[in-house]
Amino acid sequence: MNSTKTITVNASKSYDILVGKNLITDLGEIFIKRFDKCKVAIITDDIVDKLYSAVVERTLLEKGFSVVKFVFNNGEKSKNFDTYSQIVNFLSENELTRTDLVVALGGGVVGDIAGFSASTYLRGVKYVQIPTTLLSQIDSSVGGKTAIDLEAGKNLVGAFCQPELVVCDVQLLCSLDQKVLEDGFGEGAKYALLDKKVFDLIKDKDFSMQEFVYLCIDYKRQIVEADEFEKGNRKLLNLGHTIAHAIEKLSSFNLSHGKAVAIGLDFVLDSAFGKGRITKEQYEQIKSVLLNITKSVDKSLCPFSKKQICECAVFDKKRSGDYISVVNFYGVGDCRIEKIKIDNLLGQFI
Amino acid sequence: MNSTKTITVNASKSYDILVGKNLITDLGEIFIKRFDKCKVAIITDDIVDKLYSAVVERTLLEKGFSVVKFVFNNGEKSKNFDTYSQIVNFLSENELTRTDLVVALGGGVVGDIAGFSASTYLRGVKYVQIPTTLLSQIDSSVGGKTAIDLEAGKNLVGAFCQPELVVCDVQLLCSLDQKVLEDGFGEGAKYALLDKKVFDLIKDKDFSMQEFVYLCIDYKRQIVEADEFEKGNRKLLNLGHTIAHAIEKLSSFNLSHGKAVAIGLDFVLDSAFGKGRITKEQYEQIKSVLLNITKSVDKSLCPFSKKQICECAVFDKKRSGDYISVVNFYGVGDCRIEKIKIDNLLGQFI
Repeated sequence: MNSTKTITVNASKSYDILVGKNLITDLGEIFIKRFDKCKVAIITDDIVDKLYSAVVERTLLEKGFSVVKFVFNNGEKSKNFDTYSQIVNFLSENELTRTDLVVALGGGVVGDIAGFSASTYLRGVKYVQIPTTLLSQIDSSVGGKTAIDLEAGKNLVGAFCQPELVVCDVQLLCSLDQKVLEDGFGEGAKYALLDKKVFDLIKDKDFSMQEFVYLCIDYKRQIVEADEFEKGNRKLLNLGHTIAHAIEKLSSFNLSHGKAVAIGLDFVLDSAFGKGRITKEQYEQIKSVLLNITKSVDKSLCPFSKKQICECAVFDKKRSGDYISVVNFYGVGDCRIEKIKIDNLLGQFI
Repeated sequence: MNSTKTITVNASKSYDILVGKNLITDLGEIFIKRFDKCKVAIITDDIVDKLYSAVVERTLLEKGFSVVKFVFNNGEKSKNFDTYSQIVNFLSENELTRTDLVVALGGGVVGDIAGFSASTYLRGVKYVQIPTTLLSQIDSSVGGKTAIDLEAGKNLVGAFCQPELVVCDVQLLCSLDQKVLEDGFGEGAKYALLDKKVFDLIKDKDFSMQEFVYLCIDYKRQIVEADEFEKGNRKLLNLGHTIAHAIEKLSSFNLSHGKAVAIGLDFVLDSAFGKGRITKEQYEQIKSVLLNITKSVDKSLCPFSKKQICECAVFDKKRSGDYISVVNFYGVGDCRIEKIKIDNLLGQFI
């Protein structure tokens, strides 16, 4: 555990994010240094359960924590009211109190729904994020956004609620299958456009994965510290996401989030070139660097028309009355939040 | 509206509570002074809907707000996941955005579930409380506690989320039937024990109702400002409630909350006398003042044994591990939060 790095987030609550290798095998040790012995409710999905629950449970039991576990079916389709009510009822049946802990063990879906459950059960109990995918390690597990989906769209119900601790075990990324890893790199490409340090790191294809995770999280930390409740600059993290959310929805969520983000980023870059914010050469060079981590930064992979995307993007959390906030690209490390009229959304693309 | 009083709550967010007469007929005027024209989603129950929705809608429309409305069945049984999911889906279908407003028009159930819906829809949209019962005016609409119930107990899922504004129209109390009014006075009796000003006011049976509502709210304001998230002194507001929640649950919620609180208060007073914290004379005198506002301050009305109550009270939000916080009475204006072992709960009564 020598090389483990700690990022401290100073939001409405201060908490640590650990980034290192083989952390989950030492989880009991990590917990006992920070928390009183208590009941730990592990929330996870069936796929992650088979891979990691046993080791997590064992290390916690060894240090004197008691453990209960709730497992639901893997996938975005589970991120709904039904699973949410099952989880809070499970916490209640197991008599979890405010001195106990919820542990979200899994990818973004697990983190979002377990975090939302923890933040509303008894009006808030403590929770720890143990993200097991690249996407959740660099993005969704950090910053305290929790949510469930409605029929009408993703993440339409949720809360801002910071975790007590985030444990990013980058060793887990080695056992991810290519598709899931690729999904994370879609979101990673976003960080490369927002932050020059991330961009420079991935210029060399042989970059360190731990360093990549660390830099992405550290960038997000700065954003969250400055604007925890997304009144302003936190919206930068939505780069490519207005389009991505629309594409995902149009595909009935058969297209993964990361892939949709990567496609969205190419639309954003293309629009930056079309509007004269960057040159053709810059567009090509930036895109070639992003392609080092994901082949999905390619708008030709999008099966929907610009018109379809705009019609779908009109309803979005970032909408306020007749206006919507979009994030435009002006250069690596220079993205800007701009308010446009709903009617002009299509004009953004041209 | 000359006599309207304004209480400003300085919590994580600052907001006003208006206490006056005939306020809902002027709601459009009140809103337009404070909010931009927007979409207002009224959440109410079927009983309140028949009484007040028309006038509220009219006054808002007159000032240029647009209005949509969701009505559910009156009663605690509606305060569940099913109604909650219907409300957030209703908000989504009506494309409510973060610049719009939710209005909770009704008693405690409406305020709790509409507040929870508003605080989680899009991770939080603005909401206004218009409490229509005495109980909700002096207690539940103030302080930002929102919730729904689980099978296992009341208010087990919720959020702390302050409203933008609370409008207490005391004129509405005149049309309440006796049972609902009595329910509010149960909670009012709690304030009389916590705050000498309220106690002194009700010594004279002919007290001003507006002043009573004002003083109760102003006491709660001080508590909420000092401890918004109930880490400490806010627990004082739970005076009589550990017992009350147990009685309500044992009665399958056929006993009203206010009546259960009033009964709980008599147990608390009786225990204070039993433990020698007050004299027999003080007990009699205090009780006779409380009886000015509610006949339910009478433990002989409780159909359950002390043992039954304790067994049921063991699971409570105020429990932390093997301990539970209870509020003990030492004199009017002198109540104290004390931690006791779960096993000793019955001993509290003796």
